[in-house]
Amino acid sequence: MNCVTLMKRILPALFATLVASTMFAQSIDLPAPQKSGGLPLMDALAKRSTSREFDSRELAPSQLSSLLWACFGINRPDGKRTAPSAKDCRETSIYVVLQKGAYLYDAKANQLNLVTAEDVRSFAATQAFATNAPVTLVFVADLARMGTTNVEESVRFASIDVGYISQNAYLFCASEGLATGARASVDKKGLGRKFKLRADQMIVLAQSVGYPKR
Amino acid sequence: MNCVTLMKRILPALFATLVASTMFAQSIDLPAPQKSGGLPLMDALAKRSTSREFDSRELAPSQLSSLLWACFGINRPDGKRTAPSAKDCRETSIYVVLQKGAYLYDAKANQLNLVTAEDVRSFAATQAFATNAPVTLVFVADLARMGTTNVEESVRFASIDVGYISQNAYLFCASEGLATGARASVDKKGLGRKFKLRADQMIVLAQSVGYPKR
Repeated sequence: MNCVTLMKRILPALFATLVASTMFAQSIDLPAPQKSGGLPLMDALAKRSTSREFDSRELAPSQLSSLLWACFGINRPDGKRTAPSAKDCRETSIYVVLQKGAYLYDAKANQLNLVTAEDVRSFAATQAFATNAPVTLVFVADLARMGTTNVEESVRFASIDVGYISQNAYLFCASEGLATGARASVDKKGLGRKFKLRADQMIVLAQSVGYPKR
Repeated sequence: MNCVTLMKRILPALFATLVASTMFAQSIDLPAPQKSGGLPLMDALAKRSTSREFDSRELAPSQLSSLLWACFGINRPDGKRTAPSAKDCRETSIYVVLQKGAYLYDAKANQLNLVTAEDVRSFAATQAFATNAPVTLVFVADLARMGTTNVEESVRFASIDVGYISQNAYLFCASEGLATGARASVDKKGLGRKFKLRADQMIVLAQSVGYPKR
């Protein structure tokens, strides 16, 4: 085996390893989410509220994982979710904005995939109170997935679908003693650029999550 | 006291009694809703699903009361609700369509107020499967309450807010072993006329609720 043959054999393997390790560095494996337990539903509903004051303390990875599963995780073998979507289009993506960067939630792999390593919290929250929250969920609708050219209709259904997901976050926070507040105060243009969104992807709503301010 | 004086004294009281009894006949007092208990939240989320098959068996009045409280009941002394709304406008009304008529949910009085004694189920559900469900919730947004003349923005927020409420219905049904499915298949014009809606009131979504088909 000469040197060229050796290189031809080794280089693809080396390249594959490099790509894999880069991908690994750009994604965070989440711990398994908690899929049972929590406050009884009616107690969680009784405690549901909107908060505008957050402690900057980080959430535990297991809490973040359970929060995301509660929001829009897979709850059946056929891939169906904890929240419904119009015609089962599943057009909503959840971007998770942390101090260390922004990530895209992959419900199937139970991973966070890096979107940008930049701190984009000031784009995700244009009101001072919200920049203090350790987690901001940004709900983005992919209108291209909705199987209609009627944009007005797509926007209406995408908005309803985000309400479903956001309510799951509210109830999870009520159950866990966390504070949360949904808000429209997002720099949609700026954040859209940071997330590299296409024109037919729409930032619908942001939601701050954290511990209550002490 | 002559006859005319007597009549003057008695007639107003008689009239008031008559009005009160008529009003009473047109409203149904709901039993107190269950505000604690139910499945643990994460178990309810694990069981959340959309159903299109319903048994025609009626819900118990206590179940209907708890369902409505879960949806958009008052959970704090200041009148705030189990679901958030944009700028706390509380623009969503829940119409309850039963075989015996359609009613408007009054969260404060815990009552159903008669809107029409007509069976309007065929307007509330344009798909056969849904007419079989004993309860149809119809979520109506009052855009006039939203404090903006930007109709597009109002429609988006009203849609999100209905998603919040509808998800509460989904989770209540998951907890209670009931079947539910939200749907856009509503004769909006026809039902709007039956409900006597104004032009700036919008039927956003309907949701069938019942026991699972046996």
